[in-house]
Amino acid sequence: MRIGLLGYGTVGSAFYAMAQEHAQTEVAALLDLKTHDGLNCRQTAHFDDILSDGGIDTVVELIGGLHPAYEFVSAALKAGKNVVTANKQLISACYDELISLAEANGVSLRCTAAAGGGIPWLHCLTRLGQTDKITAVSGIMNGTTNYILSAMTERETEYADSLREAQRLGYAEADPTADVEGYDACRKLVLSANIAFGVSIPEAQVPCFGISGITARDIAAFKRMGLVCKLIAHAEMRDGSVSACVEPMLFPVSGQMAHINGPDNLISLRALRVGVQSFAGAGAGGFPTASNVLADCLQVAQGCGPFYTRQRRPLAVDNDALKQKYYIRTADAARSETLTVSAAHALALRYKNGQQPFFMAAVAEEN
Amino acid sequence: MRIGLLGYGTVGSAFYAMAQEHAQTEVAALLDLKTHDGLNCRQTAHFDDILSDGGIDTVVELIGGLHPAYEFVSAALKAGKNVVTANKQLISACYDELISLAEANGVSLRCTAAAGGGIPWLHCLTRLGQTDKITAVSGIMNGTTNYILSAMTERETEYADSLREAQRLGYAEADPTADVEGYDACRKLVLSANIAFGVSIPEAQVPCFGISGITARDIAAFKRMGLVCKLIAHAEMRDGSVSACVEPMLFPVSGQMAHINGPDNLISLRALRVGVQSFAGAGAGGFPTASNVLADCLQVAQGCGPFYTRQRRPLAVDNDALKQKYYIRTADAARSETLTVSAAHALALRYKNGQQPFFMAAVAEEN
Repeated sequence: MRIGLLGYGTVGSAFYAMAQEHAQTEVAALLDLKTHDGLNCRQTAHFDDILSDGGIDTVVELIGGLHPAYEFVSAALKAGKNVVTANKQLISACYDELISLAEANGVSLRCTAAAGGGIPWLHCLTRLGQTDKITAVSGIMNGTTNYILSAMTERETEYADSLREAQRLGYAEADPTADVEGYDACRKLVLSANIAFGVSIPEAQVPCFGISGITARDIAAFKRMGLVCKLIAHAEMRDGSVSACVEPMLFPVSGQMAHINGPDNLISLRALRVGVQSFAGAGAGGFPTASNVLADCLQVAQGCGPFYTRQRRPLAVDNDALKQKYYIRTADAARSETLTVSAAHALALRYKNGQQPFFMAAVAEEN
Repeated sequence: MRIGLLGYGTVGSAFYAMAQEHAQTEVAALLDLKTHDGLNCRQTAHFDDILSDGGIDTVVELIGGLHPAYEFVSAALKAGKNVVTANKQLISACYDELISLAEANGVSLRCTAAAGGGIPWLHCLTRLGQTDKITAVSGIMNGTTNYILSAMTERETEYADSLREAQRLGYAEADPTADVEGYDACRKLVLSANIAFGVSIPEAQVPCFGISGITARDIAAFKRMGLVCKLIAHAEMRDGSVSACVEPMLFPVSGQMAHINGPDNLISLRALRVGVQSFAGAGAGGFPTASNVLADCLQVAQGCGPFYTRQRRPLAVDNDALKQKYYIRTADAARSETLTVSAAHALALRYKNGQQPFFMAAVAEEN
């Protein structure tokens, strides 16, 4: 397999190193704005150099972001090149279009590393989806927020301090918005739900609540109740409709979920035949993510077919039937209350009380 | 894919039902001693009927046990038919020979369901093994013993009572030896280690200690120490040698491992690039196991290559370097002690004190 690699950041450079060690993969050209020393491949700043190279059969896109990744990936698929990417933003937003392009041009499009980092989560979803009916996907899909919440719980620090610590350690970006507001987890959820349920739900319809409103006082209150807070992305297929939400959720301190700490991910599925399955591991990082990218490349090389093989049905998100117990701490008092409302009602409450200080978390049913 | 199905027990009948629902798989013939009503395929009691049917390209072996499974699988591979099996005893014992047969005849041999039941554990090991160096595999690989230990811990019952309960609920067989003495976990460990490390270790060299010597008094002592007992199969590749052992192991009650209860499995790997990954779910049962069998069939149909692709190196098990802390409760006193010895020394102690009442459990380092 002769690869055109786009991007040489954390994941890109890790992928380059791993591909070099593997007999089946050769990085023929690298697209990057900068030139890097000591690389054993052609380097270019122009995508056309890669697109027009008939010897390159596969483009590995590790630039991230919507543009120009969208233009590059579309052009590569149209030119009959396979694409492997870790770009959750691109795949979540342009899922249908890109898959159709891949199908129309008889090439593969794989993106296992776009959710779960080094965990073969999407790969396992695809495998299981061929033999079983998956009815739910959920879990900790973002390592940054899990690190912050773990730190707040362990050391009783405030949110801002824990965020700064996460930034210092490289677990959070300088602009942490996408992580702490739940957008990153939302993209991974949409990807997961689409593959799991064979649907296509719009990212914009998924209610998405982050952790930036949480305080040390909230965490202390949870502790008194024997609970631990996690940012959970969850989606469920029931009676033909799909509910989906990203929100803080409270779990018993004595349960399994409470023990997933630091930047790790824990993602689960429920299916009719196999029941509940869980996958845990490093949800981010250069080498773990690159490992899934390389594994995708090898599967393309081995002719295992395109990533998505099932029919996709466009579907609106419907959270009306999703009823959960919620912990609510309002602005005007140090008091909090717990009530059971539909997710749609909770959504309304949240938007109404969007200003700080206000915090709301679902109370997990299980465990 | 036209399938010759061998066996119609719990897994066989679940597989038949699932294969019926799938467009890509057709069960053309069933081999069983009994004739079953309402099946939409040819039924025979003679394997030659399946072997000589040129229209059957794949044999799914769900009889279990060494014989006649070995003879049937060997003959099928020699006849140029792919084989998918869930038979851990067969694959663990005849690993090299069967893989060589598959290679020589240009067919696939897959056995994902042979370890982990419905968890795609071996499949993920294979995928990761192509891109990373796996250095350890370990976990709860047997649901029966986990059910018994969970029951003893939760309800403070004696071993014999918990075993009877497990038998009544279908989690343990009438002759529970293979499960409770650790032989079942040992076979899954050998399979896992062979795939993970690219070696071939003899099953007979893996020290294997079960849970039949444990008492309610031991469990109570563990509780006082804040520990929970699990039957753990673990293997590690270090400096070119492989350690491997099945033994009871003690984990902190506050850790993740303590929360895997009932018949579930939790299996982990450690690799240089991705770090630690864990997989949890139903480790047995008709439909979960059949789900992995069917997924293997589909991957064969999709031409994803044979199961094992890496070089296998025959290797002796070497537990000399494996030093662990052990809890020991001896026969002649209600006292217990904790000491750190090499696994080889622990082995000697165990064999010396093999008679009941004696119980020994490793103390987990992590968590």
